[in-house]
Amino acid sequence: MIIAKVIGTVWATKKVPTLEGWKLLVVRTTSSGGPETLVAADQIGAGVGEDVLITKGSVSRAAVQGPPSPIDAVVVGIIDSLEVERGLLE
Amino acid sequence: MIIAKVIGTVWATKKVPTLEGWKLLVVRTTSSGGPETLVAADQIGAGVGEDVLITKGSVSRAAVQGPPSPIDAVVVGIIDSLEVERGLLE
Amino acid sequence: MIIAKVIGTVWATKKVPTLEGWKLLVVRTTSSGGPETLVAADQIGAGVGEDVLITKGSVSRAAVQGPPSPIDAVVVGIIDSLEVERGLLE
Amino acid sequence: MIIAKVIGTVWATKKVPTLEGWKLLVVRTTSSGGPETLVAADQIGAGVGEDVLITKGSVSRAAVQGPPSPIDAVVVGIIDSLEVERGLLE
Amino acid sequence: MIIAKVIGTVWATKKVPTLEGWKLLVVRTTSSGGPETLVAADQIGAGVGEDVLITKGSVSRAAVQGPPSPIDAVVVGIIDSLEVERGLLE
Repeated sequence: MIIAKVIGTVWATKKVPTLEGWKLLVVRTTSSGGPETLVAADQIGAGVGEDVLITKGSVSRAAVQGPPSPIDAVVVGIIDSLEVERGLLE
Repeated sequence: MIIAKVIGTVWATKKVPTLEGWKLLVVRTTSSGGPETLVAADQIGAGVGEDVLITKGSVSRAAVQGPPSPIDAVVVGIIDSLEVERGLLE
Repeated sequence: MIIAKVIGTVWATKKVPTLEGWKLLVVRTTSSGGPETLVAADQIGAGVGEDVLITKGSVSRAAVQGPPSPIDAVVVGIIDSLEVERGLLE
Repeated sequence: MIIAKVIGTVWATKKVPTLEGWKLLVVRTTSSGGPETLVAADQIGAGVGEDVLITKGSVSRAAVQGPPSPIDAVVVGIIDSLEVERGLLE
Repeated sequence: MIIAKVIGTVWATKKVPTLEGWKLLVVRTTSSGGPETLVAADQIGAGVGEDVLITKGSVSRAAVQGPPSPIDAVVVGIIDSLEVERGLLE
């Protein structure tokens, strides 16, 4: 999983039928080498400004309910706290 | 999913049989760290200049109809609007 | 697999049901080009400061027990030693 | 899919049995941010100097015939032409 | 597949049961944009200093024998020779 911050929402009226009904959040990864903006599906109600855990790839399906969807990134948790050992994160 | 702009089309006469009949768009990602050009299959009629959502990887199959194809990127939606919180996208 | 160092732990109370019960470690990859921070599931008791092997992607499932979970990175081993030929690692 | 140019061939006598009989091309991606060299399986007869479409990942299997092989990149088409809107590709 | 050089070996006593019995090599990719160090499973006896082909991702399973393992990178061949057209590899 990667750590990201929810920064917005995206709307698409014209889409493939299997994407209908999904709430799509724009997230910015804060955990990888460089910043990266992704669009992730959300079923747990994450809000703008919250730090979340994102699962990527085909295993994303295990996080969502409903019929097969072309979802390659999904919000799997809203981060309460993150404890990192001092000195290990240079 | 990633956000990309449709910038063109690509044609390949000689191809694997399972790629027959697909419309292949050249897209440029505008959402990741650095710009990247990809080729994505399209079944919803995205046009040059439009901003689209692209699903990558094996889950792309859930977005397309027909027999199994070697499609690793597909247009899943045409973006109407994108609302990003001011100050969060530095 | 990639080589990473465990640098901390992350907690998320609000999460998808299929992520319940997982211990989630924050790891920093020390083996790839640039440093990258990931969150990996752990079932073998890796501790902060230890060097571990991380499997990424859908094959992560083969490393974990229990029902399907949206786990795209998992600790598969705690590294005892690493022997690299002198001169090959510039 | 990504766009790449065929730049050579690679031979490996000692290999896993499931890789027997494959023609393996060295390709250089010209479409992503930075240049990257990959080895892709080819069943359509792409030649050195030609521009090709490469499918990556597990969906590559849908492009090849025969029993399951550890092929994670495959030539799916030889590019005839590529039309990119002027001004969109900075 | 990617091209890499075997630079060492890694040992992990404490590991997930499904990783038991695997020989794990440290390899350095020489084919991608920047150098990257990976750990790959080996069943064909590749030695330190040899150039090898590495398959990544879930298709790695097709290269290995035995029950499902969390292997996301595997040595699929030892490179005999590589012929690259002069002038195409800048």
